[in-house]
Amino acid sequence: MTKKVAVILSGCGVYDGAEIHESVIALLRLDQRGAQVQCFAPNIAQLHVINHLTGEEMPESRNVLVESARIARGNIKDLREAKVEDFDALIVPGGFGAAKNLSDFAVNGADCTVQPDVLALGQAFAAAGKPVGLICIAPSLAARFYGEGVLCTIGTDADTAAALEQMGASHEECLVGEIVEDAQRKLVTTPAYMLAQSISEAASGINKLVDRVLELASA
Amino acid sequence: MTKKVAVILSGCGVYDGAEIHESVIALLRLDQRGAQVQCFAPNIAQLHVINHLTGEEMPESRNVLVESARIARGNIKDLREAKVEDFDALIVPGGFGAAKNLSDFAVNGADCTVQPDVLALGQAFAAAGKPVGLICIAPSLAARFYGEGVLCTIGTDADTAAALEQMGASHEECLVGEIVEDAQRKLVTTPAYMLAQSISEAASGINKLVDRVLELASA
Repeated sequence: MTKKVAVILSGCGVYDGAEIHESVIALLRLDQRGAQVQCFAPNIAQLHVINHLTGEEMPESRNVLVESARIARGNIKDLREAKVEDFDALIVPGGFGAAKNLSDFAVNGADCTVQPDVLALGQAFAAAGKPVGLICIAPSLAARFYGEGVLCTIGTDADTAAALEQMGASHEECLVGEIVEDAQRKLVTTPAYMLAQSISEAASGINKLVDRVLELASA
Repeated sequence: MTKKVAVILSGCGVYDGAEIHESVIALLRLDQRGAQVQCFAPNIAQLHVINHLTGEEMPESRNVLVESARIARGNIKDLREAKVEDFDALIVPGGFGAAKNLSDFAVNGADCTVQPDVLALGQAFAAAGKPVGLICIAPSLAARFYGEGVLCTIGTDADTAAALEQMGASHEECLVGEIVEDAQRKLVTTPAYMLAQSISEAASGINKLVDRVLELASA
Protein backbone atom coordinates (compact mmCIF):
# COMPACT_ATOMS: atom_id res chain seq x y z
CA MET A 1 0.00 0.00 0.00
CA THR A 2 1.16 3.50 -0.81
CA LYS A 3 2.73 5.22 2.16
CA LYS A 4 1.94 8.89 2.71
CA VAL A 5 4.88 10.94 3.93
CA ALA A 6 4.94 14.53 5.14
CA VAL A 7 8.20 16.43 4.52
CA ILE A 8 8.91 19.65 6.41
CA LEU A 9 11.11 22.12 4.53
CA SER A 10 12.71 25.16 6.18
CA GLY A 11 13.52 27.46 3.26
CA CYS A 12 15.77 26.95 0.25
CA GLY A 13 19.53 26.94 0.74
CA VAL A 14 21.96 25.42 3.22
CA TYR A 15 22.92 28.60 5.10
CA ASP A 16 19.46 30.05 5.79
CA GLY A 17 17.01 27.33 4.77
CA ALA A 18 16.58 23.66 3.94
CA GLU A 19 19.69 22.00 2.53
CA ILE A 20 18.76 21.63 -1.14
CA HIS A 21 20.68 18.43 -1.92
CA GLU A 22 19.35 16.68 1.20
CA SER A 23 15.79 17.75 0.42
CA VAL A 24 15.91 16.66 -3.24
CA ILE A 25 17.65 13.37 -2.45
CA ALA A 26 14.96 12.57 0.14
CA LEU A 27 12.15 13.52 -2.27
CA LEU A 28 13.74 11.43 -5.04
CA ARG A 29 14.17 8.34 -2.89
CA LEU A 30 10.63 8.63 -1.51
CA ASP A 31 9.24 8.83 -5.05
CA GLN A 32 11.43 5.97 -6.29
CA ARG A 33 10.12 3.84 -3.41
CA GLY A 34 6.52 4.64 -4.35
CA ALA A 35 5.68 6.91 -1.41
CA GLN A 36 3.17 9.72 -1.81
CA VAL A 37 4.75 12.94 -0.56
CA GLN A 38 3.33 16.23 0.66
CA CYS A 39 5.76 19.04 1.46
CA PHE A 40 5.01 21.55 4.21
CA ALA A 41 6.77 24.59 5.66
CA PRO A 42 5.93 27.10 8.37
CA ASN A 43 4.46 30.34 7.04
CA ILE A 44 6.93 32.59 8.87
CA ALA A 45 9.81 34.93 8.05
CA GLN A 46 13.28 33.39 7.79
CA LEU A 47 15.66 34.26 10.63
CA HIS A 48 17.74 36.03 7.97
CA VAL A 49 18.88 35.79 4.35
CA ILE A 50 22.45 34.67 3.57
CA ASN A 51 24.23 35.39 0.30
CA HIS A 52 25.37 31.84 -0.51
CA LEU A 53 28.20 33.13 -2.71
CA THR A 54 29.87 35.28 -0.03
CA GLY A 55 28.42 33.91 3.22
CA GLU A 56 27.33 37.40 4.24
CA GLU A 57 23.90 38.42 5.48
CA MET A 58 21.73 40.26 2.95
CA PRO A 59 19.44 43.19 3.83
CA GLU A 60 16.33 41.26 2.77
CA SER A 61 13.44 39.38 4.28
CA ARG A 62 12.16 36.11 2.84
CA ASN A 63 9.31 33.81 3.89
CA VAL A 64 10.08 30.18 4.77
CA LEU A 65 6.98 28.77 3.03
CA VAL A 66 7.50 30.86 -0.12
CA GLU A 67 11.18 29.93 -0.45
CA SER A 68 10.54 26.26 0.40
CA ALA A 69 8.08 26.26 -2.51
CA ARG A 70 11.10 26.50 -4.83
CA ILE A 71 12.27 23.03 -3.77
CA ALA A 72 8.71 21.68 -3.95
CA ARG A 73 8.01 23.21 -7.41
CA GLY A 74 5.02 25.00 -5.85
CA ASN A 75 3.48 21.80 -4.48
CA ILE A 76 3.65 22.72 -0.80
CA LYS A 77 1.26 23.66 2.01
CA ASP A 78 1.34 25.77 5.13
CA LEU A 79 2.52 23.53 7.97
CA ARG A 80 -0.60 24.47 9.95
CA GLU A 81 -2.60 22.34 7.49
CA ALA A 82 -0.60 19.19 8.28
CA LYS A 83 -2.55 16.56 10.25
CA VAL A 84 -0.79 13.52 11.67
CA GLU A 85 -3.75 11.28 10.80
CA ASP A 86 -3.24 12.00 7.08
CA PHE A 87 0.29 10.55 7.03
CA ASP A 88 2.25 7.38 7.76
CA ALA A 89 5.60 9.06 8.37
CA LEU A 90 7.40 12.41 8.69
CA ILE A 91 10.81 13.42 7.30
CA VAL A 92 12.73 16.63 8.01
CA PRO A 93 15.83 17.44 5.89
CA GLY A 94 18.62 19.52 7.39
CA GLY A 95 20.36 22.74 6.46
CA PHE A 96 20.69 25.70 8.80
CA GLY A 97 16.99 26.39 8.20
CA ALA A 98 16.19 23.44 10.46
CA ALA A 99 18.11 25.20 13.27
CA LYS A 100 17.26 28.80 12.35
CA ASN A 101 13.64 28.65 11.14
CA LEU A 102 12.16 25.40 12.52
CA SER A 103 13.77 26.20 15.87
CA ASP A 104 16.33 28.69 17.16
CA PHE A 105 18.89 25.98 17.99
CA ALA A 106 21.55 27.76 15.87
CA VAL A 107 21.22 30.80 18.13
CA ASN A 108 20.26 29.39 21.53
CA GLY A 109 21.65 25.85 21.47
CA ALA A 110 20.25 23.63 24.23
CA ASP A 111 17.94 26.43 25.37
CA CYS A 112 16.24 26.52 21.98
CA THR A 113 12.54 26.93 21.30
CA VAL A 114 10.89 24.98 18.48
CA GLN A 115 8.52 26.82 16.12
CA PRO A 116 4.99 25.99 17.42
CA ASP A 117 3.61 24.34 14.23
CA VAL A 118 6.75 22.20 13.91
CA LEU A 119 6.61 21.23 17.58
CA ALA A 120 2.92 20.33 17.42
CA LEU A 121 3.32 18.09 14.37
CA GLY A 122 6.51 16.45 15.63
CA GLN A 123 4.97 15.68 19.01
CA ALA A 124 1.84 14.34 17.31
CA PHE A 125 3.91 11.88 15.24
CA ALA A 126 5.78 10.85 18.39
CA ALA A 127 2.53 10.33 20.29
CA ALA A 128 1.02 8.33 17.41
CA GLY A 129 4.08 6.07 17.22
CA LYS A 130 4.49 6.86 13.53
CA PRO A 131 8.05 6.80 12.14
CA VAL A 132 10.04 10.01 11.81
CA GLY A 133 13.29 10.64 9.91
CA LEU A 134 15.49 13.60 10.88
CA ILE A 135 18.47 14.46 8.67
CA CYS A 136 21.71 16.39 9.35
CA ILE A 137 21.06 19.03 12.06
CA ALA A 138 17.29 18.30 12.21
CA PRO A 139 17.89 15.79 15.07
CA SER A 140 18.26 18.92 17.25
CA LEU A 141 14.43 18.73 17.23
CA ALA A 142 14.39 15.17 18.64
CA ALA A 143 14.46 15.94 22.38
CA ARG A 144 11.62 18.45 21.99
CA PHE A 145 9.54 15.95 19.97
CA TYR A 146 10.18 12.88 22.17
CA GLY A 147 11.50 14.06 25.53
CA GLU A 148 14.20 12.52 27.70
CA GLY A 149 16.31 9.62 26.42
CA VAL A 150 15.56 9.70 22.71
CA LEU A 151 18.41 8.15 20.72
CA CYS A 152 19.73 10.07 17.71
CA THR A 153 22.83 11.23 15.83
CA ILE A 154 24.22 14.35 14.22
CA GLY A 155 27.43 12.54 13.25
CA THR A 156 30.54 13.23 15.31
CA ASP A 157 30.59 16.95 16.20
CA ALA A 158 31.25 17.00 19.95
CA ASP A 159 29.78 20.44 20.73
CA THR A 160 26.54 19.77 18.86
CA ALA A 161 26.27 16.31 20.41
CA ALA A 162 26.77 17.83 23.87
CA ALA A 163 23.99 20.36 23.25
CA LEU A 164 21.63 17.55 22.19
CA GLU A 165 22.48 15.57 25.33
CA GLN A 166 21.92 18.68 27.45
CA MET A 167 18.40 18.82 25.95
CA GLY A 168 17.80 15.23 27.03
CA ALA A 169 18.68 13.28 23.89
CA SER A 170 21.06 10.34 23.90
CA HIS A 171 23.63 10.91 21.16
CA GLU A 172 25.34 8.12 19.24
CA GLU A 173 28.22 8.76 16.84
CA CYS A 174 27.49 7.70 13.26
CA LEU A 175 29.29 7.52 9.91
CA VAL A 176 27.95 9.54 6.98
CA GLY A 177 26.59 6.51 5.13
CA GLU A 178 24.82 5.07 8.17
CA ILE A 179 21.70 5.67 10.25
CA VAL A 180 20.89 5.58 13.96
CA GLU A 181 17.52 4.19 14.98
CA ASP A 182 15.59 4.59 18.20
CA ALA A 183 13.62 1.38 17.77
CA GLN A 184 11.11 2.09 20.53
CA ARG A 185 10.26 5.56 19.27
CA LYS A 186 10.66 4.77 15.53
CA LEU A 187 13.01 7.72 15.08
CA VAL A 188 15.68 7.40 12.36
CA THR A 189 18.54 9.92 12.01
CA THR A 190 21.56 10.32 9.69
CA PRO A 191 24.39 12.89 9.61
CA ALA A 192 24.28 13.81 5.87
CA TYR A 193 26.07 17.16 5.42
CA MET A 194 27.03 17.30 9.10
CA LEU A 195 29.76 14.94 7.79
CA ALA A 196 29.39 14.48 4.04
CA GLN A 197 32.30 15.61 1.87
CA SER A 198 30.29 15.09 -1.31
CA ILE A 199 26.70 14.87 -2.53
CA SER A 200 26.94 11.10 -3.02
CA GLU A 201 28.13 10.66 0.56
CA ALA A 202 25.08 12.63 1.71
CA ALA A 203 22.86 10.49 -0.51
CA SER A 204 24.19 7.22 0.92
CA GLY A 205 22.88 7.95 4.41
CA ILE A 206 19.70 9.70 3.33
CA ASN A 207 18.71 6.79 1.07
CA LYS A 208 19.13 4.40 4.02
CA LEU A 209 17.08 6.71 6.24
CA VAL A 210 14.22 6.96 3.73
CA ASP A 211 14.21 3.19 3.16
CA ARG A 212 14.14 2.49 6.90
CA VAL A 213 11.40 5.05 7.60
CA LEU A 214 9.25 3.46 4.89
CA GLU A 215 9.96 -0.03 6.30
CA LEU A 216 8.87 1.14 9.75
CA ALA A 217 5.75 2.69 8.22
CA SER A 218 4.90 -0.68 6.68
CA ALA A 219 5.61 -2.75 9.78
CA MET B 1 40.76 9.23 -15.49
CA THR B 2 38.61 11.76 -13.65
CA LYS B 3 36.44 13.76 -16.00
CA LYS B 4 36.01 17.45 -15.31
CA VAL B 5 32.53 18.77 -15.96
CA ALA B 6 31.29 22.36 -15.98
CA VAL B 7 27.65 22.85 -14.97
CA ILE B 8 25.87 26.12 -15.77
CA LEU B 9 23.12 27.05 -13.32
CA SER B 10 20.59 29.80 -14.00
CA GLY B 11 19.25 30.70 -10.56
CA CYS B 12 17.42 28.59 -7.97
CA GLY B 13 13.83 27.58 -8.64
CA VAL B 14 11.88 26.25 -11.61
CA TYR B 15 9.88 29.39 -12.41
CA ASP B 16 12.68 31.98 -12.44
CA GLY B 17 15.91 29.98 -12.20
CA ALA B 18 17.50 26.57 -12.55
CA GLU B 19 15.12 23.67 -11.91
CA ILE B 20 16.31 22.47 -8.51
CA HIS B 21 15.51 18.75 -8.89
CA GLU B 22 17.15 18.57 -12.33
CA SER B 23 20.25 20.39 -11.06
CA VAL B 24 20.66 18.22 -7.96
CA ILE B 25 19.99 14.98 -9.83
CA ALA B 26 22.65 15.92 -12.40
CA LEU B 27 25.15 16.87 -9.67
CA LEU B 28 24.44 13.63 -7.79
CA ARG B 29 24.88 11.40 -10.84
CA LEU B 30 28.06 13.21 -11.86
CA ASP B 31 29.51 12.68 -8.38
CA GLN B 32 28.37 9.06 -8.23
CA ARG B 33 30.13 8.46 -11.57
CA GLY B 34 33.36 9.98 -10.23
CA ALA B 35 33.30 13.22 -12.23
CA GLN B 36 34.82 16.40 -10.83
CA VAL B 37 32.26 19.18 -11.08
CA GLN B 38 32.53 22.96 -11.11
CA CYS B 39 29.32 24.98 -11.12
CA PHE B 40 29.11 28.34 -12.88
CA ALA B 41 26.42 30.97 -13.38
CA PRO B 42 26.30 34.33 -15.12
CA ASN B 43 26.76 37.27 -12.75
CA ILE B 44 23.62 39.12 -13.89
CA ALA B 45 20.21 40.07 -12.52
CA GLN B 46 17.42 37.51 -12.94
CA LEU B 47 14.74 38.46 -15.48
CA HIS B 48 12.36 38.56 -12.51
CA VAL B 49 11.53 36.86 -9.21
CA ILE B 50 8.54 34.50 -9.03
CA ASN B 51 6.79 33.56 -5.79
CA HIS B 52 6.84 29.77 -6.21
CA LEU B 53 3.87 29.36 -3.86
CA THR B 54 1.49 31.61 -5.81
CA GLY B 55 3.12 31.85 -9.24
CA GLU B 56 3.01 35.64 -9.05
CA GLU B 57 5.88 38.02 -9.72
CA MET B 58 7.51 39.54 -6.62
CA PRO B 59 8.73 43.15 -6.41
CA GLU B 60 12.33 42.07 -5.87
CA SER B 61 15.59 41.74 -7.73
CA ARG B 62 17.89 38.74 -7.35
CA ASN B 63 21.25 37.89 -8.92
CA VAL B 64 21.60 34.67 -10.94
CA LEU B 65 25.07 33.81 -9.58
CA VAL B 66 24.10 34.54 -5.96
CA GLU B 67 20.90 32.45 -6.14
CA SER B 68 22.60 29.63 -8.07
CA ALA B 69 25.10 29.47 -5.19
CA ARG B 70 22.26 28.01 -3.09
CA ILE B 71 22.18 24.88 -5.25
CA ALA B 72 25.98 24.72 -5.30
CA ARG B 73 26.36 25.22 -1.52
CA GLY B 74 28.57 28.24 -2.25
CA ASN B 75 30.95 26.29 -4.49
CA ILE B 76 30.31 28.22 -7.70
CA LYS B 77 32.14 30.70 -9.93
CA ASP B 78 31.24 33.55 -12.23
CA LEU B 79 30.67 32.08 -15.68
CA ARG B 80 33.23 34.51 -17.12
CA GLU B 81 35.92 32.44 -15.35
CA ALA B 82 34.96 29.24 -17.20
CA LYS B 83 37.51 28.13 -19.79
CA VAL B 84 36.71 25.31 -22.19
CA GLU B 85 40.27 23.93 -21.92
CA ASP B 86 39.74 23.23 -18.19
CA PHE B 87 36.84 20.82 -18.81
CA ASP B 88 35.93 17.62 -20.59
CA ALA B 89 32.19 18.29 -20.81
CA LEU B 90 29.43 20.82 -20.15
CA ILE B 91 25.96 20.24 -18.69
CA VAL B 92 23.10 22.74 -18.44
CA PRO B 93 20.02 21.83 -16.34
CA GLY B 94 16.64 23.30 -17.23
CA GLY B 95 14.06 25.37 -15.43
CA PHE B 96 12.71 28.66 -16.73
CA GLY B 97 16.04 30.24 -15.75
CA ALA B 98 17.59 28.56 -18.78
CA ALA B 99 15.08 30.42 -20.98
CA LYS B 100 14.82 33.63 -18.93
CA ASN B 101 18.37 34.23 -17.65
CA LEU B 102 20.71 32.21 -19.90
CA SER B 103 18.75 33.50 -22.90
CA ASP B 104 15.49 35.35 -23.47
CA PHE B 105 13.84 32.39 -25.24
CA ALA B 106 10.88 32.49 -22.80
CA VAL B 107 10.14 36.05 -23.97
CA ASN B 108 11.31 36.17 -27.59
CA GLY B 109 11.09 32.54 -28.73
CA ALA B 110 12.95 31.83 -31.96
CA ASP B 111 14.22 35.44 -32.04
CA CYS B 112 15.98 34.97 -28.70
CA THR B 113 19.41 36.25 -27.74
CA VAL B 114 21.71 34.13 -25.60
CA GLN B 115 23.53 35.77 -22.67
CA PRO B 116 27.07 36.52 -23.99
CA ASP B 117 29.06 34.45 -21.42
CA VAL B 118 26.75 31.47 -21.95
CA LEU B 119 27.01 31.80 -25.73
CA ALA B 120 30.80 32.09 -25.67
CA LEU B 121 31.26 28.98 -23.50
CA GLY B 122 28.67 26.93 -25.40
CA GLN B 123 30.20 27.78 -28.77
CA ALA B 124 33.67 27.02 -27.40
CA PHE B 125 32.57 23.52 -26.32
CA ALA B 126 30.97 23.02 -29.74
CA ALA B 127 34.12 24.16 -31.54
CA ALA B 128 36.31 21.94 -29.34
CA GLY B 129 34.15 18.89 -30.08
CA LYS B 130 33.67 18.29 -26.34
CA PRO B 131 30.38 16.71 -25.23
CA VAL B 132 27.51 18.85 -24.00
CA GLY B 133 24.33 17.80 -22.19
CA LEU B 134 21.27 20.09 -22.27
CA ILE B 135 18.30 19.24 -20.06
CA CYS B 136 14.58 20.19 -20.25
CA ILE B 137 14.25 23.62 -21.96
CA ALA B 138 18.04 24.17 -22.14
CA PRO B 139 18.11 22.64 -25.66
CA SER B 140 16.67 26.01 -26.74
CA LEU B 141 20.37 27.03 -26.61
CA ALA B 142 21.44 24.31 -29.05
CA ALA B 143 20.93 26.15 -32.35
CA ARG B 144 22.87 29.15 -31.05
CA PHE B 145 25.73 26.92 -29.83
CA TYR B 146 25.96 24.67 -32.91
CA GLY B 147 24.17 26.39 -35.79
CA GLU B 148 21.97 24.87 -38.47
CA GLY B 149 20.95 21.23 -38.29
CA VAL B 150 21.82 20.35 -34.71
CA LEU B 151 19.70 17.43 -33.47
CA CYS B 152 18.00 17.79 -30.08
CA THR B 153 14.79 17.26 -28.09
CA ILE B 154 12.59 19.14 -25.66
CA GLY B 155 10.15 16.21 -25.48
CA THR B 156 6.88 16.52 -27.36
CA ASP B 157 5.63 20.11 -27.02
CA ALA B 158 4.78 21.14 -30.60
CA ASP B 159 5.07 24.92 -30.17
CA THR B 160 8.45 24.74 -28.44
CA ALA B 161 9.71 22.22 -30.98
CA ALA B 162 8.58 24.52 -33.81
CA ALA B 163 10.47 27.44 -32.28
CA LEU B 164 13.63 25.33 -32.05
CA GLU B 165 13.28 24.29 -35.69
CA GLN B 166 12.75 27.92 -36.68
CA MET B 167 16.11 28.66 -35.03
CA GLY B 168 17.75 25.97 -37.16
CA ALA B 169 17.67 22.96 -34.86
CA SER B 170 16.32 19.60 -35.92
CA HIS B 171 13.85 18.42 -33.28
CA GLU B 172 13.19 14.78 -32.45
CA GLU B 173 10.38 13.71 -30.12
CA CYS B 174 11.58 11.85 -27.03
CA LEU B 175 10.11 10.06 -24.02
CA VAL B 176 10.89 11.36 -20.52
CA GLY B 177 13.21 8.47 -19.66
CA GLU B 178 15.19 8.70 -22.90
CA ILE B 179 17.87 10.87 -24.52
CA VAL B 180 18.47 12.20 -28.01
CA GLU B 181 22.05 12.34 -29.25
CA ASP B 182 23.60 14.31 -32.06
CA ALA B 183 26.48 11.91 -32.58
CA GLN B 184 28.49 14.20 -34.85
CA ARG B 185 28.30 17.17 -32.49
CA LYS B 186 28.36 15.16 -29.24
CA LEU B 187 25.23 16.92 -27.98
CA VAL B 188 22.93 14.94 -25.65
CA THR B 189 19.46 16.21 -24.66
CA THR B 190 16.60 14.90 -22.51
CA PRO B 191 13.11 16.31 -21.76
CA ALA B 192 13.14 15.97 -17.92
CA TYR B 193 10.42 18.27 -16.52
CA MET B 194 9.27 19.27 -20.01
CA LEU B 195 7.47 15.91 -19.67
CA ALA B 196 8.16 14.42 -16.24
CA GLN B 197 5.16 13.83 -13.98
CA SER B 198 7.40 12.99 -11.02
CA ILE B 199 10.93 13.51 -9.75
CA SER B 200 11.90 9.92 -10.49
CA GLU B 201 10.72 10.27 -14.08
CA ALA B 202 12.94 13.35 -14.41
CA ALA B 203 15.83 11.41 -12.86
CA SER B 204 15.49 8.52 -15.31
CA GLY B 205 16.33 10.68 -18.33
CA ILE B 206 18.88 12.89 -16.57
CA ASN B 207 20.83 9.88 -15.32
CA LYS B 208 21.02 8.54 -18.88
CA LEU B 209 22.13 11.94 -20.15
CA VAL B 210 24.91 12.25 -17.54
CA ASP B 211 26.11 8.71 -18.20
CA ARG B 212 26.20 9.27 -21.95
CA VAL B 213 27.97 12.65 -21.66
CA LEU B 214 30.65 11.03 -19.49
CA GLU B 215 30.97 8.14 -21.97
CA LEU B 216 31.47 10.62 -24.80
CA ALA B 217 34.04 12.50 -22.69
CA SER B 218 35.96 9.22 -22.28
CA ALA B 219 35.75 8.15 -25.93
